[in-house]
Amino acid sequence: MRLAVIPGDGIGPEVIAEALKVLGEVVPAAEITRYDLGAARWHATGELLPESVLGELRQHDAILLGAVGDPSVPSGILERGLLLRLRFELDHHVNLRPARLYPGVRSPLADPPEIDMVVVREGTEGPYAGNGGLLRKDTPHEIATEVSLNTSFGVERVVRDAFARASNRQRRHLTLVHKTNVLTHAGSLWSRVVEEVSLQHPDVTVAYQHVDAATIHMVTDPGRYDVIVTDNLFGDILTDLAAAVTGGIGLAASGNMDVTRRNPSMFEPVHGSAPDIAGQGIADPTAAVLSVALLLDHLGEHESARRIEASVAFDLATRDHQSPGATYAIGDRLAALVSSNVRTG
Amino acid sequence: MRLAVIPGDGIGPEVIAEALKVLGEVVPAAEITRYDLGAARWHATGELLPESVLGELRQHDAILLGAVGDPSVPSGILERGLLLRLRFELDHHVNLRPARLYPGVRSPLADPPEIDMVVVREGTEGPYAGNGGLLRKDTPHEIATEVSLNTSFGVERVVRDAFARASNRQRRHLTLVHKTNVLTHAGSLWSRVVEEVSLQHPDVTVAYQHVDAATIHMVTDPGRYDVIVTDNLFGDILTDLAAAVTGGIGLAASGNMDVTRRNPSMFEPVHGSAPDIAGQGIADPTAAVLSVALLLDHLGEHESARRIEASVAFDLATRDHQSPGATYAIGDRLAALVSSNVRTG
Ligand SMILES: CC(C)[C@H](C(=O)O)[C@@H](O)C(=O)O
Ligand SMILES: CC(C)[C@H](C(=O)O)[C@@H](O)C(=O)O
Repeated sequence: MRLAVIPGDGIGPEVIAEALKVLGEVVPAAEITRYDLGAARWHATGELLPESVLGELRQHDAILLGAVGDPSVPSGILERGLLLRLRFELDHHVNLRPARLYPGVRSPLADPPEIDMVVVREGTEGPYAGNGGLLRKDTPHEIATEVSLNTSFGVERVVRDAFARASNRQRRHLTLVHKTNVLTHAGSLWSRVVEEVSLQHPDVTVAYQHVDAATIHMVTDPGRYDVIVTDNLFGDILTDLAAAVTGGIGLAASGNMDVTRRNPSMFEPVHGSAPDIAGQGIADPTAAVLSVALLLDHLGEHESARRIEASVAFDLATRDHQSPGATYAIGDRLAALVSSNVRTG
Repeated sequence: MRLAVIPGDGIGPEVIAEALKVLGEVVPAAEITRYDLGAARWHATGELLPESVLGELRQHDAILLGAVGDPSVPSGILERGLLLRLRFELDHHVNLRPARLYPGVRSPLADPPEIDMVVVREGTEGPYAGNGGLLRKDTPHEIATEVSLNTSFGVERVVRDAFARASNRQRRHLTLVHKTNVLTHAGSLWSRVVEEVSLQHPDVTVAYQHVDAATIHMVTDPGRYDVIVTDNLFGDILTDLAAAVTGGIGLAASGNMDVTRRNPSMFEPVHGSAPDIAGQGIADPTAAVLSVALLLDHLGEHESARRIEASVAFDLATRDHQSPGATYAIGDRLAALVSSNVRTG
């Protein structure tokens, strides 16, 4: 297993160290190459993602990323030039974001139901296409545009993936989230594709919700969701909210996946570089560890993935959530649990 | 006071009847003209918003709208052809949406702080501009676009309005919500305008949050928000979420305002036509009643607006939230409270 690791900025390197500690317990032979992409490299060399590095990354089975972003870098530079560029160049069309309320974890909701959903967020088009511009900048007649690009090809492949996932889950329920009543063109495409693909999945029940209504249900009735399929921007918004109601982005893992396997998929915690707590050794590495589980699942190492998930579940059920311990201590606990092959449930 | 009233579809007419009952207590001389726009008219005549009706609406001091939308009408027809057309034709650039957790109201949050925010949502541009299209429809090469249009003119006027509102509030705090790290063009325009206008408001402290992070804080720390200014789509999403954490859209009022007063402003509950409960007389008219208070404020009738708000606050603090009563009964209670000039706080 050849893995490329991009620790990145802020708490990125801190949580990645623990994720690799845990990975070492299940795949000791993993070959790991580190890439120092991120704010520091940009400051030092002006480089974000050199072609040669991109070429090297392509030679790996998967990529593990910590976080990119730093207050010293103008907004958008690292996001568009590095993180989104990786997602687009490597055709990460399925942005997979499970949200599960683990036993023992405190939700900000008063009366949380069982929550176990997975959001399939489109990852390579929509409002993230980078298509837009400024006209008459800095004049009273300035115009800024952002174009959401949605293709039949791009929508269909994630909708198919979402249905396949729904088919394999117990509840077999899929919710399309969009804003079809306002974004009528893109909404029409998404709705038609979901309708067509649903014909091939009579086992999956399908629902539709406008994105605004979905945010309401995410706090009043999140247990209703099983698989959600949605566009890049709505997925960005909904998955942060889903993470919040299931205990916070400190626990939320994600996979940026090319499910055709033509390119390596990239796994990363949903949280950012959190510059406010960077360097203090107090970041929770759980999301990074769970991202390793998603990575292993993607590479077919399901048994190892289950071991990591079970260890996280055990730790979350038993940890003192007021003081869960230092970053390294959580990593040590999880590594020990994985090595002792703890099982839950 | 000449008011145009559009009861609309579903529970619209039911909640509007109660809102007018309450209005009658404070402005008995209001001249009211009803317009039967909505699903029924569209089915009967194919008309959504005839020019002649639009011309008549313009002759009023303000418009009160119940809700539009019906499952029998394809998604987008009434929304784009009636509701959004009204907002755009009447230049409702300030979409004002207060969200306050009233004493006695149960939030879905476990430990809700004091919540008292107002969202200034841009109302006439952004992704709502209706600019987009379909190419090669129903082929494997279909493309759907949605263009977010943002102008210096359009952004500046709502940002100015939001700063003015923040200046008049106790906490004098304003949060710009956008997604500047991805939507870099529109994000740049919004950020620059907020920065410029802030120079004229040294009394207002300014914060920025990405929309995804804002949904997290809306459930983990909603007390932080005072005034939020944001674009049309982010505002749509955030205000439903803000309504949810403050007790639900059954309580959320809104104003679609042309603050230049060249066109009549339009006030409406944030909730929709709720076809599932329409005709049963069980819809909560509180949001419609609070929309009347916003309407009166806009027309300078502040004393009457405060009377209505105080009555709603009193009713919410004392009502049995399990069975708040029928639509008409809540209306009767609120009307009686307003006529007895109840005061709270
Ligand atoms: C950092 C940012 C570009 C990114 C996104 O918007 O996708 C992040 O919010 C995420 O969800 O992974
Ligand atoms: C019905 C719909 C067009 C509308 C909107 O998106 O603005 C509604 O959600 C709202 O918030 O008033």
